[in-house]
Amino acid sequence: MTASDPFIDRLARARAAAKRLATATTAQKHAALEAIAAGIEGAIPRIVAANAEDLERGRANGIGDGLLDRLRLDEARLRGLAAAVREVVALPDPIGQVVRGSTLPNGITINQVRVPFGVVGAIYEARPNVTVDIVALALKSGNGAVLRGGSAAERSNEVLVALIQEAISRAGLDGDAVQTIDEFGREGAGRLMRARGYVDVLIPRGSAGLISTVVQESTVPVIETGSGIVHVYVDASAEAEMAVGIVTNAKTHRPSVCNAAETLLVHREAAPRLLPALAAALRGSGVELYADAAARELLPDAGAVAADEETWATEHLALEMGVRIVDSLDEAIAHIERYSTRHTEAIVTQDYANAERFLAEVDSAVVMVNASTRFTDGGEFGFGAEVGISTQKLHARGPMGLPELTSTKWLVRGSGQIR
Amino acid sequence: MTASDPFIDRLARARAAAKRLATATTAQKHAALEAIAAGIEGAIPRIVAANAEDLERGRANGIGDGLLDRLRLDEARLRGLAAAVREVVALPDPIGQVVRGSTLPNGITINQVRVPFGVVGAIYEARPNVTVDIVALALKSGNGAVLRGGSAAERSNEVLVALIQEAISRAGLDGDAVQTIDEFGREGAGRLMRARGYVDVLIPRGSAGLISTVVQESTVPVIETGSGIVHVYVDASAEAEMAVGIVTNAKTHRPSVCNAAETLLVHREAAPRLLPALAAALRGSGVELYADAAARELLPDAGAVAADEETWATEHLALEMGVRIVDSLDEAIAHIERYSTRHTEAIVTQDYANAERFLAEVDSAVVMVNASTRFTDGGEFGFGAEVGISTQKLHARGPMGLPELTSTKWLVRGSGQIR
Repeated sequence: MTASDPFIDRLARARAAAKRLATATTAQKHAALEAIAAGIEGAIPRIVAANAEDLERGRANGIGDGLLDRLRLDEARLRGLAAAVREVVALPDPIGQVVRGSTLPNGITINQVRVPFGVVGAIYEARPNVTVDIVALALKSGNGAVLRGGSAAERSNEVLVALIQEAISRAGLDGDAVQTIDEFGREGAGRLMRARGYVDVLIPRGSAGLISTVVQESTVPVIETGSGIVHVYVDASAEAEMAVGIVTNAKTHRPSVCNAAETLLVHREAAPRLLPALAAALRGSGVELYADAAARELLPDAGAVAADEETWATEHLALEMGVRIVDSLDEAIAHIERYSTRHTEAIVTQDYANAERFLAEVDSAVVMVNASTRFTDGGEFGFGAEVGISTQKLHARGPMGLPELTSTKWLVRGSGQIR
Repeated sequence: MTASDPFIDRLARARAAAKRLATATTAQKHAALEAIAAGIEGAIPRIVAANAEDLERGRANGIGDGLLDRLRLDEARLRGLAAAVREVVALPDPIGQVVRGSTLPNGITINQVRVPFGVVGAIYEARPNVTVDIVALALKSGNGAVLRGGSAAERSNEVLVALIQEAISRAGLDGDAVQTIDEFGREGAGRLMRARGYVDVLIPRGSAGLISTVVQESTVPVIETGSGIVHVYVDASAEAEMAVGIVTNAKTHRPSVCNAAETLLVHREAAPRLLPALAAALRGSGVELYADAAARELLPDAGAVAADEETWATEHLALEMGVRIVDSLDEAIAHIERYSTRHTEAIVTQDYANAERFLAEVDSAVVMVNASTRFTDGGEFGFGAEVGISTQKLHARGPMGLPELTSTKWLVRGSGQIR
């Protein structure tokens, strides 16, 4: 890592610019965000043209329709991105917030205040919208950003990053605070994961495979987000209408996202009463069921596929759901303990003691009683922004708001005190 | 990693026991802590005998006096350890504390509550007292503990862990919550660093080399503590008596700990007025000075050693101090930016604007005006316990109390809400 290494030079520039950004006022940061929003709106044809190159290369390389759709930037999506940047402007600035403080017996005052991390690294795939999202959240929280957006979106990201750098400079801050390392390829991604001293935290966004690679290989601290094998357990005492409403909503409201339910557990006593109605509602919404033998017995007419071990360990992200009959709350909790990714789990019950036991014993970021798992969301929780949903236990757990993109430091003011 | 792997079996037992510990009441945990304290007091001859074996082997292996002293457990130290365990009993239990909460517009209530991490791993060297310290803090915060205490203290730790396991079981909790992996040697330490899914967080304690190895090799999240290249900057306007008091206290009050000052920066304008008195006071306390050329010119009589690049990058942990003259506050901040380990830095000044700039621009866990750096301490900050001082930016920064050994989860209570 010498000074003439172009990769390290890129990171060092982000770091130096981020240092200045750390003490920028909220008004200055808002001016930069507004310039970015306006910059996107003013460059729609240029961005769409660059994106068309990525799409064409993607088609030539035979990438799937889902990936192509995530890759696509059209005018409507770009206007949506600009609007999202302006929504970040509307959020409270976490920097400088006093978390706690006191006056010590010797008269020294101590204040723990929020400060930026410094530089946030992001590794993601084929989602050029993430470039804008991450930059907006990083800037608002006073952080620089180093982006590795993947080869599939390379041209789109190149144009977006240039536009973002210009906009930040135009607003009087240092455009170097945002850098892309896409041209360093896979090797660059590997180096970013080991860039301690240059990058303070790394956020992977994308497939479970990408996140797992970053977690395993990174020596920079990682905030792990995303994957959700989410369970809904329908207890013996569950009310039929509520159970059907919650399970159907949790599975079908938006099946492609991490807080959508993947596995339905039903108490054996409740199964004859509830499972037929649950299955009918799910199938009515187009959900394919993978059920264990006991569940299939209660659903003889409708050809549920036999569940296997893989059923319980799969995040379908589609209109598919595992169904299992359990003998007890204990068995439900044990199933969750074994297969959950610790994102969100819900119980539907009218039994107070079982509700409290489920809340106490299930070890997931969000544990719910009688509500749809779709409520695990920064917007729904009132945080205003979608920074992601942390499935790790350090630093942040569950929906993250802007404050989760900050660190703290202690300010100590004395008048000559010694020990 | 098969079920018959004795290493994994050890970790799995800690994990299962920790799961039960997570919902133990404060009273149950206090009974276990009291049993540990009493167990230590009741086994002093046995522990001292085991420790004597470690000391003898250490001497035979030619380890230094400092290390031998850290390794030694005598009756007074063991009674001190028991007393420290009882001090942990007196601290508030962080588990179940509600961090924040609200009622959403749809009537759902959300509460973010503190929960244990699960299993805390600790890697340390030749300090058997850490075994007891870590276990007490882990238990109080509802966590299991997997300990790698190093070969030098293996016999002492073996006896202590057996005694701790018995004490926990005697108090009605599961003694398996505490495990040692010392018999798996270096390979065990390496496996512990990659034991994602079994260990939730890893705390290294010891030399800078050990901490750096753990940070670089671990895929389990690490809380980095410890090393402190701590600076005191004496500004142009500093008051003489205050500067001498703070600098001397920061350097000499307890030179072997991480919050002791290592480098003195003096503004050029203040140097002729203050440096002779500062140097006289430091030397009067036995401090050897490594000074740059400008400082040596002001101290012609007293043979300060010439400072070099290494001076500024060294954590002496002894009665040695680097001294450098700087032209400005900017130069002081730049020096700190380059050499600091981001633990604690202090300015001594009567200038309001400089004080506020130093607080805002210096990026360390604790930044001080007109106070001794020795105040960076959990006890001094009112946290009651010494969990360590985090020098990282994620999760915890600065002095850590028991709440920093916890994660959180969100409890969501609804009445059938869907999106």
